[in-house]
Formats: sequence, C-alpha cells, structure tokens
Amino acid sequence: MAHRPPALVLMTDFGRADWYVACLKGVILGLCPQATIVDLTHDIPPQDVTAGAFTLASAAAWFPDKTIFACVVDPGVGTARPLIAASADRQVFIGPDNGLLSLVFQRARRLSIVRLTNPRYWLPEISRTFQGRDIIAPVAAHVARGCALQRLGVSRRRYTSLPLPPLARTARALRGCVVHIDVFGNLITNVPARLIEAGNWEVRYRAQRVRAVSTYAEGRRGELVALVGSTGYLELALPHGSAARRSHAKRGEPVELCHRVPSKTQGLCNA
Amino acid sequence: MAHRPPALVLMTDFGRADWYVACLKGVILGLCPQATIVDLTHDIPPQDVTAGAFTLASAAAWFPDKTIFACVVDPGVGTARPLIAASADRQVFIGPDNGLLSLVFQRARRLSIVRLTNPRYWLPEISRTFQGRDIIAPVAAHVARGCALQRLGVSRRRYTSLPLPPLARTARALRGCVVHIDVFGNLITNVPARLIEAGNWEVRYRAQRVRAVSTYAEGRRGELVALVGSTGYLELALPHGSAARRSHAKRGEPVELCHRVPSKTQGLCNA
Amino acid sequence: MAHRPPALVLMTDFGRADWYVACLKGVILGLCPQATIVDLTHDIPPQDVTAGAFTLASAAAWFPDKTIFACVVDPGVGTARPLIAASADRQVFIGPDNGLLSLVFQRARRLSIVRLTNPRYWLPEISRTFQGRDIIAPVAAHVARGCALQRLGVSRRRYTSLPLPPLARTARALRGCVVHIDVFGNLITNVPARLIEAGNWEVRYRAQRVRAVSTYAEGRRGELVALVGSTGYLELALPHGSAARRSHAKRGEPVELCHRVPSKTQGLCNA
Repeated sequence: MAHRPPALVLMTDFGRADWYVACLKGVILGLCPQATIVDLTHDIPPQDVTAGAFTLASAAAWFPDKTIFACVVDPGVGTARPLIAASADRQVFIGPDNGLLSLVFQRARRLSIVRLTNPRYWLPEISRTFQGRDIIAPVAAHVARGCALQRLGVSRRRYTSLPLPPLARTARALRGCVVHIDVFGNLITNVPARLIEAGNWEVRYRAQRVRAVSTYAEGRRGELVALVGSTGYLELALPHGSAARRSHAKRGEPVELCHRVPSKTQGLCNA
Repeated sequence: MAHRPPALVLMTDFGRADWYVACLKGVILGLCPQATIVDLTHDIPPQDVTAGAFTLASAAAWFPDKTIFACVVDPGVGTARPLIAASADRQVFIGPDNGLLSLVFQRARRLSIVRLTNPRYWLPEISRTFQGRDIIAPVAAHVARGCALQRLGVSRRRYTSLPLPPLARTARALRGCVVHIDVFGNLITNVPARLIEAGNWEVRYRAQRVRAVSTYAEGRRGELVALVGSTGYLELALPHGSAARRSHAKRGEPVELCHRVPSKTQGLCNA
Repeated sequence: MAHRPPALVLMTDFGRADWYVACLKGVILGLCPQATIVDLTHDIPPQDVTAGAFTLASAAAWFPDKTIFACVVDPGVGTARPLIAASADRQVFIGPDNGLLSLVFQRARRLSIVRLTNPRYWLPEISRTFQGRDIIAPVAAHVARGCALQRLGVSRRRYTSLPLPPLARTARALRGCVVHIDVFGNLITNVPARLIEAGNWEVRYRAQRVRAVSTYAEGRRGELVALVGSTGYLELALPHGSAARRSHAKRGEPVELCHRVPSKTQGLCNA
C-alpha cells in the first residue's frame, strides 16, 4: 500500500492501567498495519460524556483533514443506543450516539452521519460489554484503509445532542458557567472569545471581580485572573497554582460578564 | 527497507512520569527506526508480576501474528534470573523468566523458548539495574528487524510458572477467586466463560447472591451484578460505580458458582 | 517522500487528561504526516523546569542522532522569554530558553542555538497562552521535514542555565544532594558514577551510613541502600519499597560521600 493512512485518533475513558486501550490498538493494527494511531486521551472521567464531548471538540480542530477519531465513552454499551460514524468538515468521527460527538457536529458546516449496521466491518464475534473493541476499532481501521462511510451502514439525519448550558443574557450582563476544569486547575467556561472581544466587560465569579489579563504570567501570585485560553473560551486561572484547588470550583458554577459603565457605578454588577 | 516491521508492544511497571519508558523507545528507534511502538501499559503496579501476567494475557490475543511483546516487570533485575524470548502461537514475547510471560505460554499450542545469552544483540554496556533498556529493548528491536529467535541464545524447555490459583470444584459448586481489579473497579475472576455457559449457576460473593446479567447497563444503580466480561472471564461489577470501591475487594477473594437446583432448596450454597 | 523523518520526541508538563498534548500532535501531523512522534513524558510536575531539565538530560542520550526533542515546561509563556532551537551533539532541542534545555547543553561538545524569530514556521495565529502548540510544535514539524535550524531565526550564543546545585568538596568528603525523586521512590543525586568509582567512599544520608550495593536485589527488605543507578548518578533506594515514602525525602537534601580511612577512624564523617 503506497498510500499512507490518515491519523487515527483514540479517545476513551478506559484509563491506561489496564489492557483495554491496547486491545483497540491490536484490533486496528491487525486490520491496518500502517495506521498512525494517536492517543487523544484515555483519561476522560469514567462515563462522563460531557467531558468527553468538550475534550474532543477542543482537540479536533488542530488535526488535519481526513483524521479519523474513534471515541468510546459509552455508559450504554450493549443496549439499543446506536453507534455512528460521521463525516464532519473533512474529518471522520466514530462513536456512540449519546452526545459524545455532538459538540463537533454542532459547529460543522457539512455533516453526514451513518448508523453502523453493517457487520461486515466488525469483528466476527461481538461482546456486549466491549463494543469499542469489537465494532468501533475495526470500523475505524476499515475507514483508515479507505472504506467509504456509506458502506458502514444506513444514513441518518438526527443525532443525540448534549444539553450544554446556554449563555444567559440580560441587558447588563452575560451569564455563562464553568464547563470544564483542566489538569492545571483552570476553569474553562462556555463564554467564547468573540463575545468578550465585542464588549467592555468585567468578569465576576462568586460575586468577586476578577482581573482580566492576556497571559498567565501577568497574574500576581495568588491572584485569580480571567483570560481567553487556548480553547478560545474565557478561563479563570490562578498563576503558579490551581484555581480549581483554591476555590473548590465545580463544573456548572456561574461566571458573569457585566457591561462596564463609566465612573461611579463601575464595578456594580446586579444582572 | 521495504518491509514494515511488525508492531512492537511494550509493557512495564515503570510508570510514565520518568524517562525510563522513553529510554526503551530511544534504544529501539536507534536500532529499528521503522518500528511501530505501541504501549500496552506502563502502569502495572510496581514489581507485581501477577498483574503483569494477567494484563499481558488479556491483551495479546487481540494483536496480529508476528507482534513482538517486550515486557519488563522484574524485581530480580541484575540477579541470576534468566531473560528469555519465546515464540508462542505466531507472536514473540521477550522478558524475564519470572512468570510474567507464563499465562501466555500456558495457553499456547506451539511454544519455543530461548534464553538470551548472545550479547551481540544487547547494548555494548550492560547496567545491573536497567536490563530492560540494555538487553530487552535492543533484543526486541533486532527481532523487529527480522533476527531469528535462535540467534538470541540457547534453546530452553522450562519456564517459571506463576502460581495462579486453580478453580476448586465440589459436587455442588465451583470456587474461583478475584484475580484482577480493573480501572473501572470491576472484579475479574479466574472463572472462564465456557464453564459458566455449560451450567445453570448461581453466583455468590461474600455469602450474597449476585444477579447475573449480560451487559453493565442491565444492572440497577447500586446493585452488584455478575457478567462475562470482555476478557472472557466472570466479572463482578457495579453499574455506574466501582465494585472495588464499594466492597473494598481484594485480589484473591473467593467467588462461588453454585449449581442451581429446583424449588425449595434454590439459593442454598454450602459447597 | 521516500525519506522517513527522524523521531520527534515530546516532553511537557501538560498531563494526559486534557487535549493539550493532542493539539501538539495534531499540528505536527498536519505539517509532517510521516512524523514518528514519541512521548518522553507529559507528567513533569506543573512548571517544574528543574525536573524537566533532569528528565530530558536522562533520556536524550538513549535516542539516535537527528532525534528532535520538542519540550514545553514554560511558566513564562507569553512573556518576553525567548523560544530557542539548538543543535547539540547531532540531536535537535526546541523549547523555551528558561533552563529546561540547559543540562543537555552543558554537556554537549558541539552546540549551536537559534532564537525562534521567523514566523514563517509558526501557525498563522499565535495565542499568548499556548505557544507550545502555536510555535514549538510547528517548528519541530518543519525540522522533521528537513528545515535547517538557521532558517528558524537568529543565531545566539547565550542560554539560560539552570542553577543546579554544584558538588561541594572538602578534604575528606564530597557533598551532593538529591536532584530528582523517581516514580519508584529512588532518590537520585547529582553525584556522577565516575567520581564514585575514583575513590573509596562511604555514603551518608541524614547522618546515617548507607550500604553500597550494585543491584536493587542485593538490598535487604527495609534497608536503604546506595548504588549507581541507570542514569549514571548515585541513587538511594529501598528495595521492594519506596525510599522517598519511607524517608519523606525532599529534593535538595544533602547526601555525603566520605573518604574511607583505615582502622579506628573509619565511619567518621565530619566534612
């Protein structure tokens, strides 16, 4: 095979201590020995579909066209929930239809989805507890070898969307929330950079004003700061420390952006 | 080199925080730049040969023929314990002869073993504390380049077997035990699927009956269930939770299968 | 492209739970799909430049010529600290000029450094919080494709050195310290093997004599021992246990080597 297959990226909640990730790789290499397998992460918190969806959406845009993402965070394994494969903006995403792929789908300009129904591309025996190994891995390997998505099953319009919290707007403020806490303890919100850049805002978290900076290094030791992080969303960070550990922050907590107004009233935020 | 080497799979207890795994990879890539290196896991509990043996046996079958497994869980490094390489059912296994490879060997239909005695395939200098880097890694790289096993050393019949607990059978029951606790907290036993399928059993753990299901999702929240897991062995699991954390289970604890008998006596298990 | 690029080794403090490492790999594979990417480690303690420098220096020598190391432990991201690329003894090192690369530089016989100033080899948009992804990853990919270092920016003589503690010598003793605690709990010092081999020493730690051995297995259970570890430096280890956990050791603690003298005075060490 002269052609080199595109990168095949794995994301799971399997951890790395056991053999589960290796089984996926063994199956893939058996079908496509030339595959370039990349680990996105295997440390999605067990069965946390939301964290998986956010992680996938944060990483995917940085991979080239044709990259194949095989994703397994699947509390419903072995039940009737479908497995799907989709082409979204020149990349391919394979996984359960439980919302895991939906943040990627929501921003795609072109999207076509198939439900995996053709057992020809699966392992000969299908367990009821490890369909990542028995269905998703071999399907991903066949796609890496050049198999067209339409051959994998039947076309499908709908997909399960994740109930990500929307932004709330009032006349004076915008209310988002913490959607992810990263390994550095940064609190990543659902407030996109373009909204921040469009206004003159003051960031508030737990009724405290948070100073806005452009780099982590601008923060003073021990000072919580707000900045647009590398995901393109507003983050709260504690330079040289962990904002999450200091504040015992939880996913879902509100973060507010208040319109700055001139002079005396500046800093008031009663949205 | 037109030929692409087979996958070279690494399993160690080195963890991932230090440079030890990278040293193996550096040595391998120096000798075989085309190698496709796959991490099985590096999180075997330090010096836990049993966990390593079980992990290796659970993963190996999913890799293609000719795959090379280089395995280092080696409390006896630098002592007289031999290092070996073996061809077992079309795959190659390299590591210390301390039981680490023995679960794979026990189920192999064809097995041939050599003791690594030929320093021509080692690094020029051999430390007494890191033979994984100095002997196992370069030997694996030479095998990936096509070196025949017989050139690595002298042939050998015996190997060190791991004292895995056998199943105990009585007229009315079968007694196995927990041999591994995986990252999801599932308790994996030494009771193989074929035995379970051959009878009408009731599973008991700590004198409690455990309901048998076919998928994790069939369990009710908070209910311990028994099922045949993806390794092909009986597992106890807590859907949406960790059976290990709930029960503080330990490796070696007994799990019983009692023959179901009709009517009144059902549920009795006094094996 | 007939030529296969050299290995591209990544070392960061990003951890593996988030998407940050994957972003580096996506950027690299977009520019150099043939790249052989190797993870040195991503578990450098957050912003711990010293640990990163020691880890890099311990691993690099085991990789072949032409290997490219892309290193990101960068508390100063987004500030004026330069990013650099260097050729050191036939390998290439890319990262911030904050001491992270300096242990490698110090032992290099041939060294040439450029400051990364040519944005042609960067991503089109540069964030202020993730220059690993926006500058270091694409530069590394271009080097893997064959780009000469001189094209990346302007030549530079100086580099930031890490204040590693020097050895203190007296007439009767040599005083080093613990510079790294590895995942097995071994205490790795800054005392090189060649110094130890040149004298007749007695090792002392916290005013206690520590028995010298050649392999971990020679130690008795529960006995702290001293040996030359696989890094080529003196280590203190607790066979079948963790010296770090037993002694609550800290980086920077002194370890002494005292000249052994004959008869009565043996064992005295008042350097």
